[in-house]
Amino acid sequence: MDWDREARTGLPEAVFAAGKTPAQIEAIVADAGERRLLLTRLDAARHAALTPATRDALDYHPLSATAILNGCAAARPGRIAVVTGGLADMPAATEALRTLAFCGVTAELVADVGVAGLWRLMGRLDEIRAADVVIAVAGMEGAIFSVLAGLVAAPIIALPVSVGTGVSEGGRLALHSALGSCAPGLVAVNIDNGFGAAQAALRILGPRPPAS
Amino acid sequence: MDWDREARTGLPEAVFAAGKTPAQIEAIVADAGERRLLLTRLDAARHAALTPATRDALDYHPLSATAILNGCAAARPGRIAVVTGGLADMPAATEALRTLAFCGVTAELVADVGVAGLWRLMGRLDEIRAADVVIAVAGMEGAIFSVLAGLVAAPIIALPVSVGTGVSEGGRLALHSALGSCAPGLVAVNIDNGFGAAQAALRILGPRPPAS
Amino acid sequence: MDWDREARTGLPEAVFAAGKTPAQIEAIVADAGERRLLLTRLDAARHAALTPATRDALDYHPLSATAILNGCAAARPGRIAVVTGGLADMPAATEALRTLAFCGVTAELVADVGVAGLWRLMGRLDEIRAADVVIAVAGMEGAIFSVLAGLVAAPIIALPVSVGTGVSEGGRLALHSALGSCAPGLVAVNIDNGFGAAQAALRILGPRPPAS
Amino acid sequence: MDWDREARTGLPEAVFAAGKTPAQIEAIVADAGERRLLLTRLDAARHAALTPATRDALDYHPLSATAILNGCAAARPGRIAVVTGGLADMPAATEALRTLAFCGVTAELVADVGVAGLWRLMGRLDEIRAADVVIAVAGMEGAIFSVLAGLVAAPIIALPVSVGTGVSEGGRLALHSALGSCAPGLVAVNIDNGFGAAQAALRILGPRPPAS
Amino acid sequence: MDWDREARTGLPEAVFAAGKTPAQIEAIVADAGERRLLLTRLDAARHAALTPATRDALDYHPLSATAILNGCAAARPGRIAVVTGGLADMPAATEALRTLAFCGVTAELVADVGVAGLWRLMGRLDEIRAADVVIAVAGMEGAIFSVLAGLVAAPIIALPVSVGTGVSEGGRLALHSALGSCAPGLVAVNIDNGFGAAQAALRILGPRPPAS
Amino acid sequence: MDWDREARTGLPEAVFAAGKTPAQIEAIVADAGERRLLLTRLDAARHAALTPATRDALDYHPLSATAILNGCAAARPGRIAVVTGGLADMPAATEALRTLAFCGVTAELVADVGVAGLWRLMGRLDEIRAADVVIAVAGMEGAIFSVLAGLVAAPIIALPVSVGTGVSEGGRLALHSALGSCAPGLVAVNIDNGFGAAQAALRILGPRPPAS
Amino acid sequence: MDWDREARTGLPEAVFAAGKTPAQIEAIVADAGERRLLLTRLDAARHAALTPATRDALDYHPLSATAILNGCAAARPGRIAVVTGGLADMPAATEALRTLAFCGVTAELVADVGVAGLWRLMGRLDEIRAADVVIAVAGMEGAIFSVLAGLVAAPIIALPVSVGTGVSEGGRLALHSALGSCAPGLVAVNIDNGFGAAQAALRILGPRPPAS
Amino acid sequence: MDWDREARTGLPEAVFAAGKTPAQIEAIVADAGERRLLLTRLDAARHAALTPATRDALDYHPLSATAILNGCAAARPGRIAVVTGGLADMPAATEALRTLAFCGVTAELVADVGVAGLWRLMGRLDEIRAADVVIAVAGMEGAIFSVLAGLVAAPIIALPVSVGTGVSEGGRLALHSALGSCAPGLVAVNIDNGFGAAQAALRILGPRPPAS
Repeated sequence: MDWDREARTGLPEAVFAAGKTPAQIEAIVADAGERRLLLTRLDAARHAALTPATRDALDYHPLSATAILNGCAAARPGRIAVVTGGLADMPAATEALRTLAFCGVTAELVADVGVAGLWRLMGRLDEIRAADVVIAVAGMEGAIFSVLAGLVAAPIIALPVSVGTGVSEGGRLALHSALGSCAPGLVAVNIDNGFGAAQAALRILGPRPPAS
Repeated sequence: MDWDREARTGLPEAVFAAGKTPAQIEAIVADAGERRLLLTRLDAARHAALTPATRDALDYHPLSATAILNGCAAARPGRIAVVTGGLADMPAATEALRTLAFCGVTAELVADVGVAGLWRLMGRLDEIRAADVVIAVAGMEGAIFSVLAGLVAAPIIALPVSVGTGVSEGGRLALHSALGSCAPGLVAVNIDNGFGAAQAALRILGPRPPAS
Repeated sequence: MDWDREARTGLPEAVFAAGKTPAQIEAIVADAGERRLLLTRLDAARHAALTPATRDALDYHPLSATAILNGCAAARPGRIAVVTGGLADMPAATEALRTLAFCGVTAELVADVGVAGLWRLMGRLDEIRAADVVIAVAGMEGAIFSVLAGLVAAPIIALPVSVGTGVSEGGRLALHSALGSCAPGLVAVNIDNGFGAAQAALRILGPRPPAS
Repeated sequence: MDWDREARTGLPEAVFAAGKTPAQIEAIVADAGERRLLLTRLDAARHAALTPATRDALDYHPLSATAILNGCAAARPGRIAVVTGGLADMPAATEALRTLAFCGVTAELVADVGVAGLWRLMGRLDEIRAADVVIAVAGMEGAIFSVLAGLVAAPIIALPVSVGTGVSEGGRLALHSALGSCAPGLVAVNIDNGFGAAQAALRILGPRPPAS
Repeated sequence: MDWDREARTGLPEAVFAAGKTPAQIEAIVADAGERRLLLTRLDAARHAALTPATRDALDYHPLSATAILNGCAAARPGRIAVVTGGLADMPAATEALRTLAFCGVTAELVADVGVAGLWRLMGRLDEIRAADVVIAVAGMEGAIFSVLAGLVAAPIIALPVSVGTGVSEGGRLALHSALGSCAPGLVAVNIDNGFGAAQAALRILGPRPPAS
Repeated sequence: MDWDREARTGLPEAVFAAGKTPAQIEAIVADAGERRLLLTRLDAARHAALTPATRDALDYHPLSATAILNGCAAARPGRIAVVTGGLADMPAATEALRTLAFCGVTAELVADVGVAGLWRLMGRLDEIRAADVVIAVAGMEGAIFSVLAGLVAAPIIALPVSVGTGVSEGGRLALHSALGSCAPGLVAVNIDNGFGAAQAALRILGPRPPAS
Repeated sequence: MDWDREARTGLPEAVFAAGKTPAQIEAIVADAGERRLLLTRLDAARHAALTPATRDALDYHPLSATAILNGCAAARPGRIAVVTGGLADMPAATEALRTLAFCGVTAELVADVGVAGLWRLMGRLDEIRAADVVIAVAGMEGAIFSVLAGLVAAPIIALPVSVGTGVSEGGRLALHSALGSCAPGLVAVNIDNGFGAAQAALRILGPRPPAS
Repeated sequence: MDWDREARTGLPEAVFAAGKTPAQIEAIVADAGERRLLLTRLDAARHAALTPATRDALDYHPLSATAILNGCAAARPGRIAVVTGGLADMPAATEALRTLAFCGVTAELVADVGVAGLWRLMGRLDEIRAADVVIAVAGMEGAIFSVLAGLVAAPIIALPVSVGTGVSEGGRLALHSALGSCAPGLVAVNIDNGFGAAQAALRILGPRPPAS
């Protein structure tokens, strides 16, 4: 682990748990000691296979498949809105929210505002416009990315998710809708990459202001 | 040519001129004689290469790359709205409009209402809702298909067009956005297939009512 | 849930159950109360994991993976034919049939008329031609879409299904055969989207006529 | 050139002219001397760039883009039907026909029998059924391959062609429709490969019977 | 089932068991009665789920995943060679062999002659050249198709199989190697389609000669 | 044109000139009158086809294919670095630079620092680290995106360009390298979309501070 | 098995165990007798299903999924460095290392030097530069291939691995990054093909020098 | 230009001329002065557009589209065989040969030994086996890569070329045939990358031995 990373770049070290064995995860947690650590893509089965002591040490959140060791950073300024189209977007959306929380940023969730019912999005536009950065989460055809980009002036990070069937299966369609949008100034991260979307938002918020 | 086709199916015979030589087109026009005929994908260069007599006989429309021989059918009932996002959608949109006109249907064009500026679409919603069938034309990410499907109850035929760059080049993204939409009941035709969209709309309008 | 949706658009609210936990489904059913609700993509394992009370409340149909709560709408006019090539098309075909039934439309199933034995289709052409809308269901190479479009004047909604092996695996081939057909006026919905095909057919039938 | 090839395998040596310079083609023709030679993919511009002497020596056929030097082989038995859907299939179809002619086989062309008008195919079924081998040529969605395979017992070689737009552009859709067909026993050659389809048909006809 | 199919086309009726429930398979077997029937893609788990009576009635062959009811047809003339590169090609190869056996044709298996050790293929060339039709079975890069086509004059049906890793996973590479070969006159069937390769070979052998 | 857009969103109206006829461009310029306007993708041939009066009115920059009417906005704060790997990245890089200049932001170009010669990038790291936002421009395999993201804490917008051959042709490889990077917090825009990268950077800089 | 292969080509015979049944593997091991043999892609479940006697005879290494029968070859000269980006690259990296060890080459592992933390790679450059051949192992965007090729003059074999999510899933992105690199002289093997990378390195080392 | 590159890495600096304007090429040549320089992808039209003085200074070779300024390096040891299947492989093959010559290595060309006529390859096997490194050049299905890898023990660099039609168009099929080969130890470079294949061969030959 690169334990100096946060000091150097302002972004925390994190462990991508998918594909790692319980023994490898135990070893990383032991190595962390008193340091703060975020684990992502730790699914329920893999979490359940850890030792009770390790499970006790971790703040585990099943929907986002994340675990936090030794707590979150102190709160810092910065308003981020995480906007989702539907229930199926929540795993990636909460991975972003937990990553932000780990770094001391409490983001606002604006959920279930998919464009098939446009008035839902319209009704919450003021909340979204109040944010410094918007993370928009969508699967299927990802139309919400373009609609938001036409309505909001802040930076918008499109987080496409692998939700869909047939031609929209796997998330490529939502990703490409963000990249190929007719609305200007959208940026995108990889499919299902809630951690990366949060990291990009943290880059945009900039370094933590010095404690006064 | 299948000159009995209109009597049999209600849909007119048409000639896909792309890839045909001027001589082949001349032969088809000569064979038509007094019959009505629609030519599609007749680009300006190919049209210019026809004999003056043939060019005189044809009502040619460059933007849609269509030509009509021996006039349009008598007007028939049926309200169709053709909705476009921007200037680049006009070749396919006008191919649909000319095909409809050839069959006696005068459709309404609702142009330049792309979702990057949502108020433009909202401002013309009443016109669109008045239609029996909507043909929605869009390239790039095709977000307008989903937005329309959430706002309009009539049948909506998505006509994706090969307008876009990078990941949206070629029209597949717009096509897949229509098919993979989160909004229910959208149907799609092939990329740039304005003729096919018009034919589908004619199938939905149903047979021409008997003259009373 | 958007419980006002049917009043607003004429199309019923429905729940896409795939990817939802039993607890989430229970909550939605509880929220519905006395309202009518359609659940799609509710596979047998997920259905079996519901509480007995919820299972009792649902009219469950395993082949289509649909469940209906609080019954179907009153019968309304409109003739729809659902045409299939073979046994493997039945899950998507019955998803369409159940969605139509939920909305009060009793459609006719014309099964097992794949083009490898053309006389089967020919022998049932009169039934198909009697329909206001045809939903054609096919996997593999989807040749039936083109054959039907040449024989029937009504609107034809191609419903491609993920039935096939090798190059036809996943349903893209059938989808593209519908979109790229040499026969005019075909429209398509997403792969395996029986619900969407039914919704499109309902859009074409138009609003329920007022009770006289 | 492998001038012994015909003696060894029964299949003639041929030159794929696309991508070769006029000088390279001249050299090959000169090297052939009195031997019989077939040139394929020799487009009109490249043919026009040859010396008059070479052009005089060649029997050139523009539609198929083939040229024959020193005549065709003596007639041999074997009935082959080449079946096409429309005018756009003719370049590949005639490449097959010219290759067969070069080898002494006169095939029958059954043209313009696309499945959008099924009665055209039905009306010529007896001619097709009389063949030892059928070469079926189609672009777009290639539905004719499946229809034919259900109606004819002879070997059917599907020759997909790069005719189509949008999702059917380039010929992959037609190729995959042949390979993924619900009808048994179809085989396919590469897109636009009229020469290869003819070679496969010659393999099926078998060695030329000894002169009696 | 289309029980008249064999009489009409010379090719037997067969059941593609993949995706069918044991109950559906039982019903088909019961419907067959005394008739001969071939079942393909009947994997061991599905076979084990049949009733003992049905299992007793079936001649089951696990490697090919085929079962035969009521025996094979009487032996008929025709020499077919099935050539494979390695052990992993055997499921598709034996599906072809069992289909041929069901129709009365005993084919010769020339196994384990992949081109990485060219002398193995060379050592068995005489056997292969003695065949009327060659079915060549290969996964990975399918180089054997081109090598065989340069060495053998008989019809060669390439049967690509889904054996490979990385870029050769799924069988597309082998399929395309057959279609895009530099050697003339190869034809291909769909990936893993041993049944289809056998059917194509039967079409080439032609109708069973009348008993004298 | 949406002339109120800048007032509403802070981002300027711009015209995507590719695919527009000279007459259409003339009309847009005439409609602009005294307003400031940016034209992108105006290639040299299309520019040369404009009337002399229009050409005189435009500040044209061939490498970026952009033209500016009525000058740039007043200078505003914000430091942006545009980092490129090689000469071939300059069209997209300068499209971004010209868009920024049009909006009053003078960005710094750090050119020719591709990772094949890592010391070039290392030698200019201080300049890059001084920026508020980094736009990284690369084609081929886009390795510079990951290297930069590990060295710089500011927001990095990856701008993939369609520079490359074989597997890297068209820019998808560079785009995917940005999205799939092992380094956290990268965001990407569409291939060759210098205008979009600049717009995203402007969103991140935020609204122009009020004149004091 | 081709037991003469090593004598003939210098490369050992090996068994690709994936897809083989335990019985087939037992038979191959029995056939080997006293000969040395390498088994690859022998996962833990398949290994556990072997008989105790066979398991005792095999030197099994779970991470690489390889087993060695009858020991490794005597040590031979040649320095090979195997460079990895992270923990997830170890299965393929150790497959290469075990293959090399089986052939008598002890390679050096330079692990965890991914480019997101460039100083890790820089700190171990001397070790890498001391090698005769470098095998570079990476998934995701594979940026390390280009960085290494700019820093090291020895032959570099890129071994892409199927590690990644979204657009980098499956290893194609890493493979294409190697092939499309801006740095000259990289070569690549198939995804996850540690055995092949080792074989290529052995070809480069050349024949084992004669014992003096 | 990185004029110290050859001293540092042993590989020469080269200019990829495709996409560069004549003025840019002139500037690079002027900057080179007395230094040796290789230009690749300099097509005939671009070469003709250079000034006479520049053209006089360049040793231009049209087939390979390469130009050499100030001569080749002194001859150095190392035997390389460049093996091709047919005439269409020559542009890439000669790009490799010219790059090698520029670096002082005279390679042997073994041309026209495609596997459709296996005896041609067999007849020249001794020449190929005498080489230290083999560069194998092939388009279409690239079967020669596997055949060679089974016959030759030296390192084999597969150089796939964009020669082919239909499914083999663009060179991906040949590339994948090399990567997915059943024969061990093949490595590949990008499509049409003769320069890269030569660079890889030079890495394998190793540093130029010191003059004695």
